[in-house]
Amino acid sequence: MLENMLKAAKEASYELMSKRSDIKDKALAAVASKLDNSRELIKAENAKDIEYAKSAGLSQAMTDRLILDDKRIDAMITAVNEIKAQTDPVGKVVEGYRRPNGLYITKVKVPLGVVGIIFESRPNVTIDAAALCLKSGNVSVLRGGKEAINSNKCLGRLMKDALKETGLPEAAVNIIEDTDRAVVMEMLKAKDYIDIMVPRGGASLIKFCTEHSLIPLVKHDAGICHVFIDEWADIDMGVSIAVNAKCQRVGVCNTMETLLVHNAVASKILPLLEKAYAEYNVELRGCERTRKIIKCVPATEEDWRTEYLDYILSIKVVDGLDDAVNHINKYGSQHSESIVTENYTNSERFLDRVDAAAVYVNASTRWTDGGEFGLGAEIGISTQKLHCRGPMGADDLTTTKYRIYGSGQIK
Amino acid sequence: MLENMLKAAKEASYELMSKRSDIKDKALAAVASKLDNSRELIKAENAKDIEYAKSAGLSQAMTDRLILDDKRIDAMITAVNEIKAQTDPVGKVVEGYRRPNGLYITKVKVPLGVVGIIFESRPNVTIDAAALCLKSGNVSVLRGGKEAINSNKCLGRLMKDALKETGLPEAAVNIIEDTDRAVVMEMLKAKDYIDIMVPRGGASLIKFCTEHSLIPLVKHDAGICHVFIDEWADIDMGVSIAVNAKCQRVGVCNTMETLLVHNAVASKILPLLEKAYAEYNVELRGCERTRKIIKCVPATEEDWRTEYLDYILSIKVVDGLDDAVNHINKYGSQHSESIVTENYTNSERFLDRVDAAAVYVNASTRWTDGGEFGLGAEIGISTQKLHCRGPMGADDLTTTKYRIYGSGQIK
Repeated sequence: MLENMLKAAKEASYELMSKRSDIKDKALAAVASKLDNSRELIKAENAKDIEYAKSAGLSQAMTDRLILDDKRIDAMITAVNEIKAQTDPVGKVVEGYRRPNGLYITKVKVPLGVVGIIFESRPNVTIDAAALCLKSGNVSVLRGGKEAINSNKCLGRLMKDALKETGLPEAAVNIIEDTDRAVVMEMLKAKDYIDIMVPRGGASLIKFCTEHSLIPLVKHDAGICHVFIDEWADIDMGVSIAVNAKCQRVGVCNTMETLLVHNAVASKILPLLEKAYAEYNVELRGCERTRKIIKCVPATEEDWRTEYLDYILSIKVVDGLDDAVNHINKYGSQHSESIVTENYTNSERFLDRVDAAAVYVNASTRWTDGGEFGLGAEIGISTQKLHCRGPMGADDLTTTKYRIYGSGQIK
Repeated sequence: MLENMLKAAKEASYELMSKRSDIKDKALAAVASKLDNSRELIKAENAKDIEYAKSAGLSQAMTDRLILDDKRIDAMITAVNEIKAQTDPVGKVVEGYRRPNGLYITKVKVPLGVVGIIFESRPNVTIDAAALCLKSGNVSVLRGGKEAINSNKCLGRLMKDALKETGLPEAAVNIIEDTDRAVVMEMLKAKDYIDIMVPRGGASLIKFCTEHSLIPLVKHDAGICHVFIDEWADIDMGVSIAVNAKCQRVGVCNTMETLLVHNAVASKILPLLEKAYAEYNVELRGCERTRKIIKCVPATEEDWRTEYLDYILSIKVVDGLDDAVNHINKYGSQHSESIVTENYTNSERFLDRVDAAAVYVNASTRWTDGGEFGLGAEIGISTQKLHCRGPMGADDLTTTKYRIYGSGQIK
């Protein structure tokens, strides 16, 4: 049954790939209007998921993420309208030239085809991901978590209705209703139908996909992010950034997990941070030198590799910039890394040498986000180097095609 | 032992990634000069491989590909000099803007890190691949075929000497001397050290890599390329392109394997082609309608899926453009596809609807090549959609990094 869906998805992708932007935008407008006109239906279907979550004893935080109230429906409508307002990446001529033999070569952005997305609880991802795919001429195959299945089915139905009204194939958006893990395996093997897989989720999902996929992946892996407070840091700024990067929101991938402090300023800044973190009840785990200055739990080797996603922070005192860079390149997840410094040479050296999707001077790692970067919505944040790196928007859902105009050239 | 090499390679990649272009170019100049000054050594080492090939009974064609004579050494030197003359892709600012909150965001091309390359007999690939990697600031780990091992070791040694002279880490170029297939498996699992794997070879190698790799791949897969002769084709041009695409060189991936002919011109053009192909002793395998016009072996379903790499051609008569496009999208390998037509609408429709790396109007598929496209040397031709598609040059050996300049921004 999944195979039938995927076959139809592949068929639809050939139709969708050459559709004009104005038609795709009309479909997005129809999606926004359906969301607005179907609020009661959406909330009723969502209520079933909430009820299930409560009966299944899901945590308050998990249940909160599931809720679709009017405010969240408004946010989904805004996202669809923002995606609609973006420039269609498809058709952009990336390069073009005439060769000595007269061949006129253009390299043009085209849709990837069929995009498979695996995600967890938040049902608004269904709308964001499908809308980004539609904007960029891609068919989406969405496999959300079972906690949100009623909401997802409802949103999928509304999008299919909008496609139908616009004269686009309904198979351009697909919701997989079977929430068994076996379906993920089936998706990963369906290389004849799916062009790219985007797994969004915890480490075990990413590992599973990496080991079993026959389809190229864009991974949205862990975020083990660092802030390095240099000896030349403005101390107030260092405290402010270190607190924001850890405490503004702990459960997300661009949150700092390890703080690195230059030996020369450790005894000055660590007591200030100890006090600031105490207000948020952050558990501190420090290296030996840290523990000589402030009170904290001993950090183990394992701590440097851990994404806590919680009010826990590991702290290491380092001997200088290169020591900090080496630690980050060894233990980081190539997501977001920041230095706090007033020293020009150190700032450039950090930006040059740290191997990560986003490297900052004097700013919180929390900014790494498609919206904050001005890409509109994002389908996730890539922590791999192939294809795209960092927040992934509509533009990253394209590949290229050489269109070559000849006049009988033979070799 | 492989692990030690890979560890050193990863270390070297951190050093190489921020090296200036003029230093990398100096190393490339040193490589070119070493090749020129070591002709006798190269030929002596190559003679061992040729001797082995003869004693092992390798085919004449295979043995020919192994040979490094003065002409081929000249060609390697030219390739290195051309790569040196290219613009360094690293450091190119792809995008840049200031956000409302004052963050100044730039998106910059950076090296991938460590590139693993698996290839077969031709030893000049060792030089091309290593030089392209060096130009783009990447460390290369090269695993060539056992038939060329003495030549490859010698070329690797010369490159390491050139790196050392220039003050770059010798571990920037690595030749794996163990030619056992088990080493390929070890490479595919070494995700902590290798950032991207580029397998170049037959279908079984690609399948093996797809199934086992934990590292993102850029595949250089089969080429099942088509030429479609439309009802509006210039018949002479149709014959010339169809003959060139099949016969100019049969053993390569951009050679045509299936010819599609519009029903309306089949009885006119097929006899001309039959005669032309007879001169090259091409075995023709035709669909039922083809066999009513010219004499040939019946083509089976399997023929449409086969990359012959030989003087064999399958021929199908189709009912029109859409029929041709559907056949190509179903059976093609998304490599190179060409239409011969004088009809404007059909030419654009073909370019729009065929899903392949390179789509041509009125030209031979044989043009798909990094050199012919003006990219300088190529590391291969990608038949996948992720990361890069078509001929892969130095530019495709980069990823991006967001460099973000703040002034204390917190979220």
